[in-house]
Amino acid sequence: MTSNSASEPDLDPENWDEFRADAHQALDDMLGRLESIREGKVWQQAPAEVRAEFARGLPRAPQNLSAVLDVFDQSIVPYSNGNGHPLFMGWVHGAGTPVGMVAEMLAAGLNSNCGGRNHIAIDVERQIVRWAAEMLGFPTESSGVFVTGTSMANFLAVLVARNAALGHDIRKKGLRSAPQLTAYASAQAHGCVIAAVELAGIGSDNLRLIPVDETGRLRIDLLKEAVARDRAQGMQPFLIAGTAGTVNTGAIDDLTALADFARAEKLWFHIDGAFGALCALSPKLRPLIAGLERADSVAFDFHKWAHVPYDAGFLLVRHPEIHHATFAAPMTYLSRAPSGLAAGDTWPCDLGPDLSRGFRALKTWFTFRVFGTDRIGACIEHTCDVAKYLESRLNQSKAYEVCAPVALNIVCFSLTSSSDGEANKRVVMDLHDSGDAAPSITVLNGKPVIRCAIVNHRTTLRDIDTFMDVLDKAAKRAG
Amino acid sequence: MTSNSASEPDLDPENWDEFRADAHQALDDMLGRLESIREGKVWQQAPAEVRAEFARGLPRAPQNLSAVLDVFDQSIVPYSNGNGHPLFMGWVHGAGTPVGMVAEMLAAGLNSNCGGRNHIAIDVERQIVRWAAEMLGFPTESSGVFVTGTSMANFLAVLVARNAALGHDIRKKGLRSAPQLTAYASAQAHGCVIAAVELAGIGSDNLRLIPVDETGRLRIDLLKEAVARDRAQGMQPFLIAGTAGTVNTGAIDDLTALADFARAEKLWFHIDGAFGALCALSPKLRPLIAGLERADSVAFDFHKWAHVPYDAGFLLVRHPEIHHATFAAPMTYLSRAPSGLAAGDTWPCDLGPDLSRGFRALKTWFTFRVFGTDRIGACIEHTCDVAKYLESRLNQSKAYEVCAPVALNIVCFSLTSSSDGEANKRVVMDLHDSGDAAPSITVLNGKPVIRCAIVNHRTTLRDIDTFMDVLDKAAKRAG
Repeated sequence: MTSNSASEPDLDPENWDEFRADAHQALDDMLGRLESIREGKVWQQAPAEVRAEFARGLPRAPQNLSAVLDVFDQSIVPYSNGNGHPLFMGWVHGAGTPVGMVAEMLAAGLNSNCGGRNHIAIDVERQIVRWAAEMLGFPTESSGVFVTGTSMANFLAVLVARNAALGHDIRKKGLRSAPQLTAYASAQAHGCVIAAVELAGIGSDNLRLIPVDETGRLRIDLLKEAVARDRAQGMQPFLIAGTAGTVNTGAIDDLTALADFARAEKLWFHIDGAFGALCALSPKLRPLIAGLERADSVAFDFHKWAHVPYDAGFLLVRHPEIHHATFAAPMTYLSRAPSGLAAGDTWPCDLGPDLSRGFRALKTWFTFRVFGTDRIGACIEHTCDVAKYLESRLNQSKAYEVCAPVALNIVCFSLTSSSDGEANKRVVMDLHDSGDAAPSITVLNGKPVIRCAIVNHRTTLRDIDTFMDVLDKAAKRAG
Repeated sequence: MTSNSASEPDLDPENWDEFRADAHQALDDMLGRLESIREGKVWQQAPAEVRAEFARGLPRAPQNLSAVLDVFDQSIVPYSNGNGHPLFMGWVHGAGTPVGMVAEMLAAGLNSNCGGRNHIAIDVERQIVRWAAEMLGFPTESSGVFVTGTSMANFLAVLVARNAALGHDIRKKGLRSAPQLTAYASAQAHGCVIAAVELAGIGSDNLRLIPVDETGRLRIDLLKEAVARDRAQGMQPFLIAGTAGTVNTGAIDDLTALADFARAEKLWFHIDGAFGALCALSPKLRPLIAGLERADSVAFDFHKWAHVPYDAGFLLVRHPEIHHATFAAPMTYLSRAPSGLAAGDTWPCDLGPDLSRGFRALKTWFTFRVFGTDRIGACIEHTCDVAKYLESRLNQSKAYEVCAPVALNIVCFSLTSSSDGEANKRVVMDLHDSGDAAPSITVLNGKPVIRCAIVNHRTTLRDIDTFMDVLDKAAKRAG
């Protein structure tokens, strides 16, 4: 073998001009779709012949990019999630932005691996860590790390809290010889908190789901009783997971009272602030999350209310040394050098289980730099105004009843005629199937109800008028 | 409040034409960089004044996209990771492709949340699951899920194996009342396997790191002894984690022997195939991973040898029901409906801890469709040829000695004159600091050695000639 051997294969374009034309066309098409997104359906079911496209086996042969882009345009774009549309109101989905799309393109072009090492992407991520601390009122030296989403961030927080309670020796010894830990969250906590306690090996039998009051907030009196009971029985309480914005109704726990109690009892105080933490960006909403700045850790998503493209979850931790000691490991091929690419102190891979990590910080950085936090905060505030407007429209009609206080941006309601909630389910399916709007279903007090989470920065008051029209029609059809 | 209220804020461009111009310019600039990537430095240290840019506080005010793009061009692009450059040989980094960049842009434009629900992105991910099964010789009905990377996939595999061993009741009960599990991997296993056992609460004291033979493969005889010893002492062996491609030298365990032993002992057989699993795409390399198709689970990355942009890790599991039962949880707001957006059976959020998840499947789908697996396989094979060529060039010189067999694409070597390896470290730092090439350092038999992992599809035999030139110069400088 010599260095003059025949053609060597690579994965770069054979014809860059042709590639450029295809890439610009793809960009144009997607921008066109975003500009006119309000005019299309929120969602439509992919027909069987489209789904058949995705039943094909492993492709051995190459295909022209332009041909594959055609398949994308015809078989993927029309049947996608729909969360960019102003009448998508299901679950809690961010809408994305064109700015975020450009940033993500650039991140993929750079293709940085942000597990660690001495390159500028790590500086950008560290800047976002400081921005997160500044935004949430945490100390400047707090540590933080991007993850997929809050489900993962909550999981990591449970692992950090586990180490804080049992000592870092637990990494070697395992849980079997340790005291039985117990954790506490509200009965309205997100299911991923339960999953986190399960996956961490603590067992959900040892997570106390404390009942909530009529506003959906964890009852502190019952929490105190539960902790005292567990202590009396020889358990080791270690973690309170407060919620800033429950998924069902947007309720926010009394974070100050939780912080006081956690400090008195020497418990780790984590907050699931998946979307609610970003209330910090609105002067009007910020008082609702008072006490959050006293937490030991906060999990939240930039891809929800800040509309960074999926995924961009984040964990912020007040105690960098505990955070670091939970995850950091000596690996010879990851050893640090005094200079060069292997230089640097704490790397993101020391703060979580990921070693391969995309450049999530870049799309977040572009989003914050281009819009500024005041405008992001104004959009967040506006979604709450839109929710209040929806509530007022529903209250004006005898056909609907609002089922929970509208604390933030989530409106849960029922058809007045639907005592068992079955008609509510039919209305939601009808709206999905027609593609007119996409609220979702949740269960409140045992009854399926219609749930509209106004997250999208594009949703206007006029969109709510449109929603009421299509809702009235669907409600009639649902009988 | 009425629906005629004054201007409502959003995060869409005020001027779409201006935005389009900026976006196309950004695309052009990045494509230009990729086309000429060989001409630039592999890496350069960001100077203090550049890093100061990323010390600024939270931006409250907006800024023009074009101004932010300028900061990106001047302060981020020149100081990025460098893994697209043909002389980046550090660690195991994929190089990315322009096709992957376009796909990631489109994914960000769609902004699908792939936690679940009834939209086409889920169909695309399911297709990739079947492609992975087809590629690796797994049963068609295997389950799989995208995660960040193999570190995370290995962690999930340990959790699945834990449930398989202890029963799904462990989710409620926790580990404290369960038997003590023990796991087995080679002494050359990636550190993330140790971390996974720690994070899963099993404790790394209960992970046996079995010594390797002179080719870097786990010694089966010592494995058998270790399992027998643990059983005799009342432990419950549950998991063997084989390695297909060790990070230090690219060694591949005897997977067939491991599969036989795991079956005989009723142990979960997981394979860390971070990069090695993709040997499956090369007819020449595929025999090296014989036995992989018998594993209970395989973790690997599409972003390494298949050059999908970061991040795109994957876990494939032979037993969908165990996989599902490890993670799936009933949540009322995630309940499934007979039709509409909430329809569908197993969602990705039932197969891992992520609920918010980007559309990693799309960039993988574009990569496989556009290039086809034959060409990806040819590029993988070529990196091994390039490594062999580097080995031959090193062997031709008295200044260097190759320190480990070149099993795949990784070449570890030392300056002949460097008995303690300190000069090796200096050479690597020198190459980084000059920006001429980026190998990394690892430790073999206690000695720091220079390690070149040829992963990049762009690296040619001629690039190796260039590398030898800059290496010789750096070696002289290092004394």
